[in-house]
Amino acid sequence: MSPDRAGTRATGADAQRMIAELRELAQLTGTDRGAQRVAWTDTWAKAREWERGLLAELPVDVDVDEAGNLWATLPGTSPQVLIIGSHIDSVPDGGWLDGCLGVISSLEVLRALAASGTPPLTVKLVDWADEEGARFGLSLMGSMAAAGQLDPDFVRSLRDVDGITAQDALAAHGVDVDRMTDSRARLTDAVAYIELHIEQGPVLEARDLPLGVVSGIYGAERWTARFTGQAAHAGSTPMDQRRDALSAAARLALEVRSLARTRGGVGTVGRIDAEPGIPTAVAGVASALVDQRHIDPGTLQELHRLAVAASRSIASEEDVEVAWSPLFQVAPITFDADMVQAAAQIVVSLQGVDMRLPSGPLHDAARVAETGIRTVMLFVRSKRGLSHTREEDTDETDLALALAALERLVDFELRRPR
Amino acid sequence: MSPDRAGTRATGADAQRMIAELRELAQLTGTDRGAQRVAWTDTWAKAREWERGLLAELPVDVDVDEAGNLWATLPGTSPQVLIIGSHIDSVPDGGWLDGCLGVISSLEVLRALAASGTPPLTVKLVDWADEEGARFGLSLMGSMAAAGQLDPDFVRSLRDVDGITAQDALAAHGVDVDRMTDSRARLTDAVAYIELHIEQGPVLEARDLPLGVVSGIYGAERWTARFTGQAAHAGSTPMDQRRDALSAAARLALEVRSLARTRGGVGTVGRIDAEPGIPTAVAGVASALVDQRHIDPGTLQELHRLAVAASRSIASEEDVEVAWSPLFQVAPITFDADMVQAAAQIVVSLQGVDMRLPSGPLHDAARVAETGIRTVMLFVRSKRGLSHTREEDTDETDLALALAALERLVDFELRRPR
Repeated sequence: MSPDRAGTRATGADAQRMIAELRELAQLTGTDRGAQRVAWTDTWAKAREWERGLLAELPVDVDVDEAGNLWATLPGTSPQVLIIGSHIDSVPDGGWLDGCLGVISSLEVLRALAASGTPPLTVKLVDWADEEGARFGLSLMGSMAAAGQLDPDFVRSLRDVDGITAQDALAAHGVDVDRMTDSRARLTDAVAYIELHIEQGPVLEARDLPLGVVSGIYGAERWTARFTGQAAHAGSTPMDQRRDALSAAARLALEVRSLARTRGGVGTVGRIDAEPGIPTAVAGVASALVDQRHIDPGTLQELHRLAVAASRSIASEEDVEVAWSPLFQVAPITFDADMVQAAAQIVVSLQGVDMRLPSGPLHDAARVAETGIRTVMLFVRSKRGLSHTREEDTDETDLALALAALERLVDFELRRPR
Repeated sequence: MSPDRAGTRATGADAQRMIAELRELAQLTGTDRGAQRVAWTDTWAKAREWERGLLAELPVDVDVDEAGNLWATLPGTSPQVLIIGSHIDSVPDGGWLDGCLGVISSLEVLRALAASGTPPLTVKLVDWADEEGARFGLSLMGSMAAAGQLDPDFVRSLRDVDGITAQDALAAHGVDVDRMTDSRARLTDAVAYIELHIEQGPVLEARDLPLGVVSGIYGAERWTARFTGQAAHAGSTPMDQRRDALSAAARLALEVRSLARTRGGVGTVGRIDAEPGIPTAVAGVASALVDQRHIDPGTLQELHRLAVAASRSIASEEDVEVAWSPLFQVAPITFDADMVQAAAQIVVSLQGVDMRLPSGPLHDAARVAETGIRTVMLFVRSKRGLSHTREEDTDETDLALALAALERLVDFELRRPR
C-alpha cells in the first residue's frame, strides 16, 4: 500500500476544528503575553482538564501515568501500539503552537480513526509531561521517565525560582518522584512513535516549503574554552608584547563558525567573558561558550576535535594557554529510515517537493527513539523561525497540510505489513 | 653646554638616600597588600606630613595651593620657574614607586641644588593632588585644576563608594572646591616642567634598557561598537541564515588589533557583551569596547575612522547593524622637542643607547604641557611592566640611573641659554 492511498479515505481529520481548538486553548490558558501552560502549574492543569473534556467525547481510555504523562488509548485489532502526540505544556509567554499542535492534531487524527472503526494497531495519544523544563530546568521530564532515563534523586534536587521543590510541585499534580520511572511500562508494546511539531527554526521558511520530515536530532558538544594570557594596560602595552586572551577567543569564535560552514551542522559562540573586562586593559582571561551540533556522531566528534585543535593553534600563536571544560553533551539521534522514507513520500505527495531536515532543538521523540522504538517527526514551518514567544505563528493553510501529513503517516503506519 | 657637563658636579643627588626614603614611605603608608596613599585619605595626609618633614630640612618655602597641590620653592636668581615633581598619592594596594619616585627623586635633586647655592631659575617641587583618581574616579585632579581645566561643578557631583561627596572629602583636607582653579596662578612664571615616572609598561624591559625619554602621551579614542543582528536558536538556525552579532564583534576586535599593528599606536577590545549571552542562542546583540591610542592626532583620527569603516563593512557582510557611542576621547600630547632632545642626549650618556617612547597612561605632565609650558618626562623601566599592584618593582641600579638622568636634565634646563 502506498502512502497516497491513505488520502483517499472518505472521512478524515478536520483541520478547521483543530485550529479552532488550538485557538480555544490559547484563549483559555494564555494572556496578552502568550501561552502560560508551564508544567506543574494550575494553568497547565487547566489545559489538561480541557484536553480531557475533548477526549471524553471519544471511545478512548484516558489516564495519567506515574510520570504525569497523559495517555488516551484507542484499542486496535492488535495489542501492538502506535503512539502519536507531543506536549501541551509551554514556556512562560510562549506561542500558540509549540507542543500543543502535536497534541491537538493527534487528537483530531484519533477522532477520525475512532470514527472509522477499529484500527489495526492500538493507537495511543500521549501528552508528555514537562517537555519544556520551564519551571525546574529539566526538559523532557515525562518522556525521559517513560524511557527509563530519569534519575529520581536528580529530580528531588530541583527547585523552582521560589524555592519550591520539584518533589512538592509534582506531588501536587499526583506524581510521586520515586515512582516516575514506573511509567516505562507504557512503552512496552509500542512499535512506533510519530510526532508533529512546529520547526522552531527558519529552514522551511527559507525554502518556501510548508512541511519537512525530521531525519533526526542533532547531537551537541557544548564546552567552555578558557584562554589565559596576561592582563595588561591597554595604553602602555605595545601590540607585539601582548598575550591577549580576548583576541584568541574572538579567533576561536570565527573558527567554530567556519568549521560548521565547511563540515555541516551548526557551530555557535554565544558569549565571550573577558577579565578584567574593562576598556583600558588587554584581557588576561577570556572564556568562550562553544556549542557545536551535528546529526552524524562521527562528524560531531570531528567538529569538536577540530575546534580544540584550532584553539591550541590559536593559543600557541597568541602566546596564551587554553583549557576546555564540558558543559553538556548529547549524542545525535537518527530517526527510523523506513519511517523517514514513508513520511518523505507523503510530504512529496502534499507539497511536491522532498524535504528532510535535522532538528536542532531536542524533542520528546528523541527520548522515545533512544529506547529503540521506531520514531519519526514531521515539522511544519514557523514564521520567521520564531518560537518560545507570543510572536510564534504558522499559516492556517500550513497547519491544515501538516494535519493531513500526520493523518496519512499514521494511516500508512497502521496498515503497513508487519 | 652639553648635558654631560651636569654629571661632573662634585656634590649631587644621593640615590641610596632616595631609595631609603622611598622604602620608609612604603613602610609608613603601606600594608601587606601594597601602598595605600589614596588621595584625600588619612594615609595620604600622613605621607604628606612625612614629606613636609623632609622638606623642612631644606631652605625651601612649603605650601599647599587651592587645589591641594603641595609646592616647595627654592628661590633662584630669576623669578622664572622650573617645576619638577610628580604625585605621592597611590591607588589602593599600589606599588612602592608609582608617583612617589618622581616626588622623592625631585626632593633629592632639590637637596643637591640647595647645597650648591642659588640656582639660575627658581625651582619648585610639586606633589600633585590626586593623580590617580582612585577615590572619586577623576584622575589628574590637582594638575587639571592648576591647568585651569577643572570644572568645579563636576567635582561637586562626585561621590566615593561610601557616598561621601568629593566636596566634603576635599574640605576635610583644606580644599574648597569653588577655589580650586585659583591654583592656576602657580603656573604663571613656569618655563619648564620635568617629571620622572616608572614606565608602567613592558617596553623598556623588552629593550633591556633602564631609561627612556617620553616623547609624548597617547591620545585615546574610546568607543562602544554595538552590533545588532537577530537572536536565534543555536540548534535550529542554519549557518547561512544567521545574523550573528557576536561574530561581527569578534571580527572587529581582530580588525582593531590589525589596524594598530600596521599603523602604529595601540588598539584594544577588552570586552564583548553578548545578548542573550547563553550557549544555546546566536547572539542578537554584541557590544565591543574599542580603545585606540596613538601619539599623532591625525593618525589617531584615522585609526578611529578605519575602525568605524571596518565595522560597517563587517556589518554589511554579516547582515547586522552597527552603531558607535563615544566613551572617552583625549587628544595626543607631544612633549617639547628641545627638551626631548636634551633628555635623549643625557639618556644616551648614561646607558649608551637612545630610547624614546610615547606614554600610554596619562600623567600630570599632560595637563601641564597643555598649558604651553615646555614639558618632558623620563621613564625608568618597570619589572614585567607591572604597576598598580604591590608586585610593581624596579631594580635599585635602575632607580639610581633614573635619579642621575633627572638631576642632569634639571641641571641642563637650569643652565641652558634663555
